[in-house]
Amino acid sequence: MSESENTFALRIIGRVESSLTAIEPAPRQPDEGAPPAVLVFEPAVAAGLAGLAVGDTIIVITWLHLADRTTLRIHPRGDRTRPSTGVFNSRSPARPNPIGLHRTLVTSIAGQRIGVSALEALHGTPIIDLKPLLSEDMTLR
Amino acid sequence: MSESENTFALRIIGRVESSLTAIEPAPRQPDEGAPPAVLVFEPAVAAGLAGLAVGDTIIVITWLHLADRTTLRIHPRGDRTRPSTGVFNSRSPARPNPIGLHRTLVTSIAGQRIGVSALEALHGTPIIDLKPLLSEDMTLR
Repeated sequence: MSESENTFALRIIGRVESSLTAIEPAPRQPDEGAPPAVLVFEPAVAAGLAGLAVGDTIIVITWLHLADRTTLRIHPRGDRTRPSTGVFNSRSPARPNPIGLHRTLVTSIAGQRIGVSALEALHGTPIIDLKPLLSEDMTLR
Repeated sequence: MSESENTFALRIIGRVESSLTAIEPAPRQPDEGAPPAVLVFEPAVAAGLAGLAVGDTIIVITWLHLADRTTLRIHPRGDRTRPSTGVFNSRSPARPNPIGLHRTLVTSIAGQRIGVSALEALHGTPIIDLKPLLSEDMTLR
């Protein structure tokens, strides 16, 4: 895929394995009861997982491939009785680049399969990055 | 740009305006003295900014366009005396998809120009998403 001045080619580096298979029952945020999941990475990027350990808190970055990329305003949680707001003022999957941020805990590591404690993403969701959580991400400034 | 099974087209929704213009002096993390910056959004996505307010804590998601996308192992902070680790166990910009996560504070809003308190990204860095910070992002579970 070629790149131009205003777009870049995002590479899928893995997929989510999850018991969540339909949009409706998927919880919106991890505190609402997301199930455990497995992050299955492509063999080509496996070297990038070196150093990860069980117990690490990580940020999984996904591409919410079923989201509507043309929406710019949403009603929070789809509730039409609430006033609409901009997608950049919400965590709705609908947005020009449907990037998902998921904070979770590493519970197992078996080669390119990383088990995590909770993930609010459907089975098959593309993974595009993984980062360790830093204290700076958490501290209010 | 066409999309295929293993890549997606990422759309640039804005650019960073910053006094940081070269890679070397750019701090690695915000607590190391990143300067204030302005997020300049494309007119086409301006409606998505509705509801953002001065004082909001946000997560700016950038595409670190100068990063090396082929690197899978790095020496932390480029220090070759430290053992190498996988890029997914680091916050190095080098990684298959060079996504930057930047937690910062909204200090001004003027149309499509959003001022932020601190941002460790070079002038011209593409912006790909913006989200409000949730308490769930911060609380250790």
